[in-house]
Amino acid sequence: MIRPPLTPLVASLPSFVPFVGPEAQERGRGAPFRARIGANESSFGPSPKVIAAMAGAAKDMWMYCDPDNHDLKAALAAHLGVGIGNVVIGEGIDGLLNLAVRMYAPAGAAVVTSLGAYPTFNFHVAGFGANLITVPYDRDRENLEGLADAVKRNAAPLVYLSNPDNPMGTWWEAGEIRRFVESVPETTMVLLDEAYGETGPASAQPALDVSRPNLITLRTFSKAYGLAGIRCGYAIGEAQAIRDFEKIRNHYGVNRMALVAGEAAIADQAWLKEVIGKVAAGRERIAAIARDNGLRPITSATNFVTIDCGADGAFALKVLKEMLARDVFIRKPMVPVLDRCIRVSVGLPHELDIFAEELPKALAAARAG
Amino acid sequence: MIRPPLTPLVASLPSFVPFVGPEAQERGRGAPFRARIGANESSFGPSPKVIAAMAGAAKDMWMYCDPDNHDLKAALAAHLGVGIGNVVIGEGIDGLLNLAVRMYAPAGAAVVTSLGAYPTFNFHVAGFGANLITVPYDRDRENLEGLADAVKRNAAPLVYLSNPDNPMGTWWEAGEIRRFVESVPETTMVLLDEAYGETGPASAQPALDVSRPNLITLRTFSKAYGLAGIRCGYAIGEAQAIRDFEKIRNHYGVNRMALVAGEAAIADQAWLKEVIGKVAAGRERIAAIARDNGLRPITSATNFVTIDCGADGAFALKVLKEMLARDVFIRKPMVPVLDRCIRVSVGLPHELDIFAEELPKALAAARAG
Repeated sequence: MIRPPLTPLVASLPSFVPFVGPEAQERGRGAPFRARIGANESSFGPSPKVIAAMAGAAKDMWMYCDPDNHDLKAALAAHLGVGIGNVVIGEGIDGLLNLAVRMYAPAGAAVVTSLGAYPTFNFHVAGFGANLITVPYDRDRENLEGLADAVKRNAAPLVYLSNPDNPMGTWWEAGEIRRFVESVPETTMVLLDEAYGETGPASAQPALDVSRPNLITLRTFSKAYGLAGIRCGYAIGEAQAIRDFEKIRNHYGVNRMALVAGEAAIADQAWLKEVIGKVAAGRERIAAIARDNGLRPITSATNFVTIDCGADGAFALKVLKEMLARDVFIRKPMVPVLDRCIRVSVGLPHELDIFAEELPKALAAARAG
Repeated sequence: MIRPPLTPLVASLPSFVPFVGPEAQERGRGAPFRARIGANESSFGPSPKVIAAMAGAAKDMWMYCDPDNHDLKAALAAHLGVGIGNVVIGEGIDGLLNLAVRMYAPAGAAVVTSLGAYPTFNFHVAGFGANLITVPYDRDRENLEGLADAVKRNAAPLVYLSNPDNPMGTWWEAGEIRRFVESVPETTMVLLDEAYGETGPASAQPALDVSRPNLITLRTFSKAYGLAGIRCGYAIGEAQAIRDFEKIRNHYGVNRMALVAGEAAIADQAWLKEVIGKVAAGRERIAAIARDNGLRPITSATNFVTIDCGADGAFALKVLKEMLARDVFIRKPMVPVLDRCIRVSVGLPHELDIFAEELPKALAAARAG
């Protein structure tokens, strides 16, 4: 059959989906999960004030969004202590990563990330024909020196680093991050993904530096603010770097509901603080459950805990499958050495009860199988 | 100052914004508009059932969307009488146009559209380095023969056509559209934008043909369904062409609220029918107001009426500015010959009252100025 050819680049790409959603798994199983603690969502939800704001705004959805996203940018800028020209909003950090790769990574260029880090970034790097260079984790942390070396060795125009990190939940202190940023060439753009920044120690978050043209910090309403479904992330950076997003961003891409939710979320810092406390308590609980089962929890700065199952990737995969079979949605890292772990998001207390109840059974079954 | 270089392609792009939003104009004026009838939104809003569904779903926004968009695709497929594999959802038609250009238009390739047609399509064509070939309208309709000739002459891999069309509101009957699709090479992908399909005559909408690999039909919840703010469009096509979107689409890009709203909107066809009736009545009203002022309304199949102001583009621009100065948000085509017109969206009755009251004053001022 004759058909319009895809561009050579797009034709070369696999039909890759970075994640299989829990809904697809539920459709496959024909049954819902009892605990949804695999996607690092916030089971505590958004603030009641945010829910009320969204409900109240539903009737306004006949209007396009303000393509300048002015009001949310202004709220963020005031909250962050930067100028409105230092902020751009996107369809989640995912959407901003797509744009940043397109802006800074010509086809064939080297782009550096950690082996086993965020797969959606890798998806965009492949999607625009750049060449992904991966640096292994070092003792369950992203290897800052290794990343900087890889940047220099490959003259990479773009490097991605998350802090705190996913999937391990580990982090570097602000001073280390600053040293890393200073150690890469000024011609290399650093994407610093702070999706999990709110739940980590304050000492891990470097002060925003909007004078530096080669640093874009990425944050989101998806995690601590409890708004993963609304798709709203933001980038903070030097004014020209932020302005350059205008060249290619989908100006009407962030929906009006997301803008309403984001504004209301920023306004309710008390809720954020409360959630951060619950997340910290939930991490303790998951770590205790892991230890009760003879496993080693990795100390986490995020809204999840990654648990070393004490053997190889094949064993951890068995544990994962046994947990899924027991109606508990969790995930695991897939790249060797990290793959010895499972990853459990902080859920509601009753979800962690289910986790505590099912984990020993899953471990026993995995050891027997 | 040393800074990371943009890719040569992105560096070459202007910081172009396809549209200035009414909100930006209101911020500039320091006053709100009294009538918002410029962006072809549906002032009648979404169905009350859709509003209730969104309000009810607000508390669920802590969850990521199903990246397969399964339930909305299933609802659309059932409604349209196609398979679930023939539908892909995007962040509005805008988001799908971005992907389609990226899929079918290599840098340097010719892409064909009508001169003065949808600017966001042109934005994406420029954004991916393709070469836009424009064909002038013929008597206020897109020139089907001219478009097909331009495709063949330039060996264009991609052609864009809207039916009914924006900004003129005109249309071709289904048979003419089918003949156009059949007249372009099988290696050329046709993007048929039916954003305004619901408000046009049924005879203008060709039956969906999902066996043809070179036709992608685009529809949206933004217009007749009254959900412009929610950013949800969909593409219908042959299974492989639809599957190819998986290679590059942002799998979590369409937000959870949009999926909820879309499903509820499809389920309430009675509301759609009611809105279509109101839109038809509103078009008649706008046309009558135009005629009362000695102007010629162009017969429209959309939710707006484009009005020939009877002189050149400079005069119509004066009329536009006089209307804006009178707190009435409308827009106008900007490309010569079409630019002799202003474009007025069907608003609520009280908005059209304001339009009727202000148009003669704006015309008098424009003639005097």
